[in-house]
Amino acid sequence: MPLDNHFDLVVIGSGPAGQKGAIAAAKHRKRVAVIDRGEMIGGCSVHLGTIPSKSLREAILYLSGINQRAFYGEDYRVKDTISADDLRLRVRQILEGETAVVRAQLKRNGVTTIDGTARFTDPHSLSIETDGPIKDVTGDYVLVTCGTRPAASANIPIDGKRIFNSDQLRELNEIPRELIVVGGGVIGIEYASMFAALNTKVTLIEQRDTVLDFADLEIVQALEVHLRSLGVTFRLGETVVSVRLDEQGRVEACLESGKTVRGERLLYSVGRQGNSDSISLASAGLSADARGRIKVNEFFQTSVPHIYAAGDVIGFPALAAASMEQGRLAANHMLGTPGHFAIETMPYGIYSIPEISMVGKTERELTEAKIPYEVGVSKFAELAKGKMIGDEIGLLKILFDPTSLKLLGVHVIGEGATEIVHIGQAVLALGGTLAYMRDAVFNYPTLAEAYKVAALNGFNKL
Amino acid sequence: MPLDNHFDLVVIGSGPAGQKGAIAAAKHRKRVAVIDRGEMIGGCSVHLGTIPSKSLREAILYLSGINQRAFYGEDYRVKDTISADDLRLRVRQILEGETAVVRAQLKRNGVTTIDGTARFTDPHSLSIETDGPIKDVTGDYVLVTCGTRPAASANIPIDGKRIFNSDQLRELNEIPRELIVVGGGVIGIEYASMFAALNTKVTLIEQRDTVLDFADLEIVQALEVHLRSLGVTFRLGETVVSVRLDEQGRVEACLESGKTVRGERLLYSVGRQGNSDSISLASAGLSADARGRIKVNEFFQTSVPHIYAAGDVIGFPALAAASMEQGRLAANHMLGTPGHFAIETMPYGIYSIPEISMVGKTERELTEAKIPYEVGVSKFAELAKGKMIGDEIGLLKILFDPTSLKLLGVHVIGEGATEIVHIGQAVLALGGTLAYMRDAVFNYPTLAEAYKVAALNGFNKL
Repeated sequence: MPLDNHFDLVVIGSGPAGQKGAIAAAKHRKRVAVIDRGEMIGGCSVHLGTIPSKSLREAILYLSGINQRAFYGEDYRVKDTISADDLRLRVRQILEGETAVVRAQLKRNGVTTIDGTARFTDPHSLSIETDGPIKDVTGDYVLVTCGTRPAASANIPIDGKRIFNSDQLRELNEIPRELIVVGGGVIGIEYASMFAALNTKVTLIEQRDTVLDFADLEIVQALEVHLRSLGVTFRLGETVVSVRLDEQGRVEACLESGKTVRGERLLYSVGRQGNSDSISLASAGLSADARGRIKVNEFFQTSVPHIYAAGDVIGFPALAAASMEQGRLAANHMLGTPGHFAIETMPYGIYSIPEISMVGKTERELTEAKIPYEVGVSKFAELAKGKMIGDEIGLLKILFDPTSLKLLGVHVIGEGATEIVHIGQAVLALGGTLAYMRDAVFNYPTLAEAYKVAALNGFNKL
Repeated sequence: MPLDNHFDLVVIGSGPAGQKGAIAAAKHRKRVAVIDRGEMIGGCSVHLGTIPSKSLREAILYLSGINQRAFYGEDYRVKDTISADDLRLRVRQILEGETAVVRAQLKRNGVTTIDGTARFTDPHSLSIETDGPIKDVTGDYVLVTCGTRPAASANIPIDGKRIFNSDQLRELNEIPRELIVVGGGVIGIEYASMFAALNTKVTLIEQRDTVLDFADLEIVQALEVHLRSLGVTFRLGETVVSVRLDEQGRVEACLESGKTVRGERLLYSVGRQGNSDSISLASAGLSADARGRIKVNEFFQTSVPHIYAAGDVIGFPALAAASMEQGRLAANHMLGTPGHFAIETMPYGIYSIPEISMVGKTERELTEAKIPYEVGVSKFAELAKGKMIGDEIGLLKILFDPTSLKLLGVHVIGEGATEIVHIGQAVLALGGTLAYMRDAVFNYPTLAEAYKVAALNGFNKL
């Protein structure tokens, strides 16, 4: 094999984990190749997941005027009729921009990009199917960041038109008047709240008794109450046994409890499946679990030490932000400069309307672990900034140790939640206490001020 | 004097410093009275300054559609003609809400509010002029938080109609097509950018060679470039020698350099004057400087130890957020639980469009102090979130010690600047380093991510 087909590192997939891993290695002057289908540069995150959904969300937030209704009344809209095209226009601008950024970053760092789909032929070798002839490459190291796709279910006859998954959402040519969402995880909740903001009548079906079961209960309840006020119906603790189209072409979902839920369209958003089945893992001496996930150690090494995996394909937490860090850490470990994945201070961002974000422990986790805690709360509606932007739902909770006053967790719902959670994250990570939050000067008016109000509230309880 | 006229603490003024001081003392079960004119409860901050201007800003941001122009073109507006009434409606809602909050907070904490204007008769006694008979009160402690008013100038014949100061802005019955702003400090810049967003042709005159001279030069330049793109003309290093109305009733400002600037209206926003001249300071054995400022020590005590002063009347920094903290610390010092005013990690928030915020040192300060530093920068336009919200100006700079990697300063311009600066503030205050910013997981997409990007940029320079 000619030498120019050999790389220090070969990366399978150009999503957040792959990109950041490739760039970290390239910055150390390593020869790096990233393999992905050309039209998919940037991965799911750019084309199907994070970026399109969050761009869509920004467009909806604006065009629906939902955040202005506190001032101009419940019926307020910027556009009376929002079309799928209005939304698509804005999302497309962002996607094209982001794809270009990823390409430019890889190029600027001297990373070779190979257009095609890769599969292992042995632990160091990959065969790449391209539009032209098949190429072969070898690598001293391989980083598998092949991502995931929406899981399928035997009970749900997905047709991509009336019954679809989140990857197919962008093909919607009109905004449905009714939508059944199956699955109350992050993806289900994000889309349920976006369509609710667009005035779609949403029914959300979730097998468990609560949506977003990893989040703080009080925050989740605030979200549920708000979504109900936008016309969302929750069917919790219910299992879908079959889905079919009726004579009029409407979707009919039958639940185990005997209920039938009908609607114009159905979004199936229960779980995701690793793409590891397409890369001939066995040829590398590797295997995946039933959901296609590859097991790694704390350094993101698989059972074959020179093969690393990162991003959604290794499972939890499967968030773009975490994947980037994993990719970077995997590359740094190969290069002999290992780092630590700060999972205990990793934030979660849920881009529902309104946003939810959290870092550290929940009350449930602390109770289970028998760790005593006290709570400081601040409502955005009581902050000057909350009133100015008309946020009537927002809430920030600080969980702290009543003896040491150290922070244990921060939970936020409301506008800017995904931004301001990082203040709590820094204090948590750097070992700060509630006294820091009480004594710091916060810009006025801001939502960040909620930390000070919550800290004073917490001190009042001691 | 009957006993019920005696208080543990008498507070002159109900602005941010007065409120928080009164509540802090009341929480320690002290008898507290706050004296202010009834219609002014909440102080300048609620009625004339912070709250009205920031509410106005939110209304303008929305109604002008200025943040949406990246998507819908330079001519985009939500409302084609924005009237003064459109803006006033929203501001009034917020003011009424905030006044009610202040009243409720004082009441809930058992603070007595006395409607009137106070003056010292001796160091422990105040005479209060009310609509009815004059009342007298005495206090073991007195907290002076009487605030400031816009300064006047012999050269500027303010009439409150064509030539006005920032307190008179709310009486504007229409949005001027042209506005001359004299003074490029925080107030001048905030209003200049708001009117520019409303399509008013603004000319800003400032005596110094730069506006906002305490802020980071690169950030100020980014703001200037942006404001110019909105049609603002800067006349820097220019002094106004006289202002008059011409025959058509237009305002004419003559500059020392011989230039004449003409416009429909003129806003004079150079400096503020302490209200200490109205409270008979001398009867308490106190005096103020030429600008009406009262001198205090680090515990906010005046030269008469049982009389404290806080807020705008003590001068720099004269920000609502700082005043609150000063009021609280003054009360805590009286109560024997002194705290420390964390001025070195106090943020500045400038609510221009776009926002500016900073904490810690500027490059200029570090250079003067001969402290070596390196800079990490991130542009919002390169962040996924920046693209989604169309922020083309945003910029975050981290100044750090190249040896210890400790943060020295954070400077931000762009949407959410006043919120996300608090992440940098926490890291700075808790002694974190650039490595924290590099290694932390940030929600994606957020503007907070700029810290990570700036940290990586900073490391690349070492």
